[in-house]
Amino acid sequence: MKLIALSKQPADPGAFDEAYFGKHLPLIQKVPGLHKTHITRFTRSLAGPGYYLMAEMEFADEAELKVAMKSPEMAAAGESLDSFAKGMYSLMFGEEQ
Amino acid sequence: MKLIALSKQPADPGAFDEAYFGKHLPLIQKVPGLHKTHITRFTRSLAGPGYYLMAEMEFADEAELKVAMKSPEMAAAGESLDSFAKGMYSLMFGEEQ
Repeated sequence: MKLIALSKQPADPGAFDEAYFGKHLPLIQKVPGLHKTHITRFTRSLAGPGYYLMAEMEFADEAELKVAMKSPEMAAAGESLDSFAKGMYSLMFGEEQ
Repeated sequence: MKLIALSKQPADPGAFDEAYFGKHLPLIQKVPGLHKTHITRFTRSLAGPGYYLMAEMEFADEAELKVAMKSPEMAAAGESLDSFAKGMYSLMFGEEQ
């Protein structure tokens, strides 16, 4: 089971990257039960609404992800994301087929 | 380098799945240079615009992906997607970091 965050194109990509990779991701990496995080940078948009960055965070199963969502570490990571990207991201649970 | 398609929630998920897995994906799998396709089904939306399904299609590099985009196989796959999901998806190039 994955937690997937899609971030919209920021007004200032340099400032976004500094906050995202410098502050947000280190907090995400402290979340209990998180096995691996894959970051995808979008380089071109061909159709529909485009995005800037995607984070795919892998957990063993939905139970582990639910525990993680309620952890103080996830709360801290969410607060850090909202401090520079509030209203600029989608957050979903997903299952790879 | 990846080609990433994000599909919005369809009005009729059963009909979408039938067309997507029965017709569209088999055409995608014929695209030259495609190494692997990962399908993620979104099960819950927590913030921002939600999606129904994501396809991540892996290519060796941007050159291979550009060749694939111009292939008749990709044209056929695109036509099949538009036949049941026109205006309902985002399509982007992306690079995993």
